[in-house]
Amino acid sequence: MPRFFIAGTNILGGTAIMTGRDAEHVHVLRLRPGDDVILCDTEGSDYKCRIVKATKEEVEAEVIEVTPCKSEPSVKASVLCGLPKGSDKTDYIIQKSVEAGAFEICFFSSDRCVARLDEGGRAKKLERWNRISEEAAKQSGRGIIPEVRWIGDFTQCLDTAIKKDLSLFMYETGERESLDSALKGCREIKTAAIITGPEGGFAQFEADLAKVIGCRICSMGERILRCETAPIVALSALMFASGNLE
Amino acid sequence: MPRFFIAGTNILGGTAIMTGRDAEHVHVLRLRPGDDVILCDTEGSDYKCRIVKATKEEVEAEVIEVTPCKSEPSVKASVLCGLPKGSDKTDYIIQKSVEAGAFEICFFSSDRCVARLDEGGRAKKLERWNRISEEAAKQSGRGIIPEVRWIGDFTQCLDTAIKKDLSLFMYETGERESLDSALKGCREIKTAAIITGPEGGFAQFEADLAKVIGCRICSMGERILRCETAPIVALSALMFASGNLE
Repeated sequence: MPRFFIAGTNILGGTAIMTGRDAEHVHVLRLRPGDDVILCDTEGSDYKCRIVKATKEEVEAEVIEVTPCKSEPSVKASVLCGLPKGSDKTDYIIQKSVEAGAFEICFFSSDRCVARLDEGGRAKKLERWNRISEEAAKQSGRGIIPEVRWIGDFTQCLDTAIKKDLSLFMYETGERESLDSALKGCREIKTAAIITGPEGGFAQFEADLAKVIGCRICSMGERILRCETAPIVALSALMFASGNLE
Repeated sequence: MPRFFIAGTNILGGTAIMTGRDAEHVHVLRLRPGDDVILCDTEGSDYKCRIVKATKEEVEAEVIEVTPCKSEPSVKASVLCGLPKGSDKTDYIIQKSVEAGAFEICFFSSDRCVARLDEGGRAKKLERWNRISEEAAKQSGRGIIPEVRWIGDFTQCLDTAIKKDLSLFMYETGERESLDSALKGCREIKTAAIITGPEGGFAQFEADLAKVIGCRICSMGERILRCETAPIVALSALMFASGNLE
């Protein structure tokens, strides 16, 4: 059943009024009076609604049933990535992280980042990134729209990460613990951070800093993962280990 | 260190001669006499070699050291996918599966496949797909080049799968077991199959058939994964559970 998020929808006395892009989307999907849609309130409830009237500008639907949304993972996972070069990689990280269950996706700048996100173009990029997240959230049946954020430099990445119950720093060399060991007991945690680097990886001083501040420095085996693949593999492992791929 | 596969290379008495695309690649990377490369024999050994002479057509290198390749997972995972529509999805499945540690990637046709791979274009497609695998294998430091194969129809997919120690059939509805339960004890297995469907998923009769024949029918949670995302998430979970992300 097609899913929409409730932002931009008014629900008044059992009737939902959809306008703007959502109404257009209903039109594109050729949904007609009598067809059902799900409106998701992004706070844990799904509203099953039946369309009563539909034009390209406005859709009126009757609320039939309100049920708890079951698709949100028990752990809120923040995916924190060093900004990659090329928008195909950022787009890919966002889309796949949302499907795999991320709570939010944050980009930051680190020592080896080649790409820059200057202030001028930032708002436009963030708007596009958040639209990709919304589309992926709709399609994969998420109960929230994971926010895509720009969090500044590497220290701000660490500051975001250390507030979580568990924070995993993926690093390619040196002394590291296995993901298996770092994810022991993760069925109990409520929040987690997964930190991955840009194309060139992290500098040694960044890994050292992450360790001092309390991140778990983790290996993902002997294979070298691309910067857009690493967050998805790590997130999948976290979701599996925390009982959220069941 | 840049990695190459030994196919197309002659190693005679401690000297390696690289020709064709590999020699060109050395040229593109601007490697010069004195630089080191790794030649991988795709059977578990890495040859560390130092370049002696390099032209665009031929590279001569001296073997310095032979070491066992550590990057191959303990479980040979066959990723079996219903052929998706659009080459971006097949390319993506191949590249990411190779990075995540697949042993081979096989495409097949199933009831809801929209895409067709007619005999005329097949050889050309397979050649391109295997080149994507080779590039990803080089980049991620694999010890083998995972083969990309066309295995025909759904019965042939099942026939391939049931020969493995464990075969996982990812399905979206009905009675299924959790991946967690299906992957119990998977540190001991040598071979595994991961079966995922095309855009429209599998038909009920296909899931029934898979079950009868001995596949484990698995859920990956409440979120709906795209056909190109599901194999990567499942493969990551398998690699994690079998101790190959350490």
